Amino acid sequence: MELVFLGTGAGVPSKERNVTSIALTLLQEQNSVWLFDCGEATQHQILNTSIKPRKINKIFITHLHGDHVFGLPGLLSSRSFQGGEEKVTLYGPEGLKDFVTTSLKVSGTHLRYPIEIQEIAEGKIYEDDQFTVFAKQLDHGITSYGYRIVEKDRPGELLVDRLKAHGVHPGPIYSQIKENPFVDIANGQRLISEDFIGPNKSGRVLAILGDTRAMATHHEFIKDANVLVHEATFEREKEQMAWDYFHSTTTQAAEAARQANVEKLVLTHISSRYQGEDNHRLLQEAKQIFSNTELATDFFKLDITAHS
Amino acid sequence: MELVFLGTGAGVPSKERNVTSIALTLLQEQNSVWLFDCGEATQHQILNTSIKPRKINKIFITHLHGDHVFGLPGLLSSRSFQGGEEKVTLYGPEGLKDFVTTSLKVSGTHLRYPIEIQEIAEGKIYEDDQFTVFAKQLDHGITSYGYRIVEKDRPGELLVDRLKAHGVHPGPIYSQIKENPFVDIANGQRLISEDFIGPNKSGRVLAILGDTRAMATHHEFIKDANVLVHEATFEREKEQMAWDYFHSTTTQAAEAARQANVEKLVLTHISSRYQGEDNHRLLQEAKQIFSNTELATDFFKLDITAHS
Repeated sequence: MELVFLGTGAGVPSKERNVTSIALTLLQEQNSVWLFDCGEATQHQILNTSIKPRKINKIFITHLHGDHVFGLPGLLSSRSFQGGEEKVTLYGPEGLKDFVTTSLKVSGTHLRYPIEIQEIAEGKIYEDDQFTVFAKQLDHGITSYGYRIVEKDRPGELLVDRLKAHGVHPGPIYSQIKENPFVDIANGQRLISEDFIGPNKSGRVLAILGDTRAMATHHEFIKDANVLVHEATFEREKEQMAWDYFHSTTTQAAEAARQANVEKLVLTHISSRYQGEDNHRLLQEAKQIFSNTELATDFFKLDITAHS
Repeated sequence: MELVFLGTGAGVPSKERNVTSIALTLLQEQNSVWLFDCGEATQHQILNTSIKPRKINKIFITHLHGDHVFGLPGLLSSRSFQGGEEKVTLYGPEGLKDFVTTSLKVSGTHLRYPIEIQEIAEGKIYEDDQFTVFAKQLDHGITSYGYRIVEKDRPGELLVDRLKAHGVHPGPIYSQIKENPFVDIANGQRLISEDFIGPNKSGRVLAILGDTRAMATHHEFIKDANVLVHEATFEREKEQMAWDYFHSTTTQAAEAARQANVEKLVLTHISSRYQGEDNHRLLQEAKQIFSNTELATDFFKLDITAHS
């Protein structure tokens, strides 16, 4: 489970930062990749990573501003051209369907895989046996969503020392214990599996927000996340500008991370007015409030380790 | 007057070639830039050139396949963001208006400049005091146009030696001779201007074709062009494939150039199956038939000098 920041700029591409897209690779978990936003040239950025477009099976769009969606028709087309056959589901605000279907229609693009477009509302928008995804409306002038991806708790580890103390040594029996409520062993004894399995491992929680003003009303939604991805379009001094344009500053994002007790904060969606040396300063502004902060650059990767 | 090849690949972007776009810079002629097609990430390519997006005031779309138009919404948006105020006119097949207006509408993009979208038919589609542009339908499965850009003849040079022989020396009188049918000089003599101006300089002619099978029916349209830009998606051996997919081979493009008596041929829209070393071979295939051929790579520039 890894986040790969494919584009970390705001509004327009620059030589340093492409417009927004973030991949969540779930290769070990379900051999798939989820995409969050798909600004223009996201497929070009992917060419410089190990991500296989055919493995992208879910695309979550936070909002329909061009710097978050104009790469979608091209990515979908190329995925087809490159042999993708598995269904793709798109989630996003109303208007997403009109944009995608019009783009594919006028360009005469016939995808070789099924596509489903869900125009969402707040609440639970997806669930499988590993993950639940929730959406919440943010504050951005046009409809903009944040996504909270909640991994379900997973069974704990086998308590090998305790098993050995009961004379049960490694072998197929270990899998049986994991998969059944009880197991009868050779000496006629019945092992109650839960006595030999450690506590459940807590699922990981990610909160990935679209463009937004930083608002206290978001804290409940991002609470206790292992990773919060928050926009920081502007520096600390530009609070008024951030408010006027429905964006956040570095320090506002850090304050949200602190108040919502998240584990790690990643800042992205950095205005193209900030280049090169500015990155260090922007990061320090946030770190003064929330020390466990990273400032994403294009191709920045973050491994999200499980915590118990 | 210069052609700048911003993207020279076919179908999908590769690390070597972006999808199609060609800029025709008319900086000396009218301080503007015309764009032919606008595949995804054309605006990104422009970041690596000296082209100013605000100077792009005409965009000619050959056809609506994604690799020729998916960069349009982003380019138009960024041009606005970067302060472009002059009107832009778009020319292209039916469906162009639906694509552009839907993209701008759903993304909440409000351009700060006027935009006009002309869905064209064959024939003369544009004329000003310097250029006339003609369109012709090609053979590509979906509607695909070729454009013939015809520069009007310009007045010849002043015949300075002859003027001096008549005792007329450089000064404001030279401009008067250029701009009036006759001029009375100090000694009472009347100079007939055309006696002192060389023959008209022929305007330059460019033919830029969209994706197409190479057809004899195009020869009249591309005839005698100073530069013909022709697609060459496939190598010589792939004639059947070219036919099946409504494309051309290197040798078919060269044959068209030869038969239509053009001055120079530029091949573009090269399949991503050809990389690196293949370029040389593809070019040689064409050169065996038409020696004055270039094979475009991304950022290839061609200065189009006036000929008399």
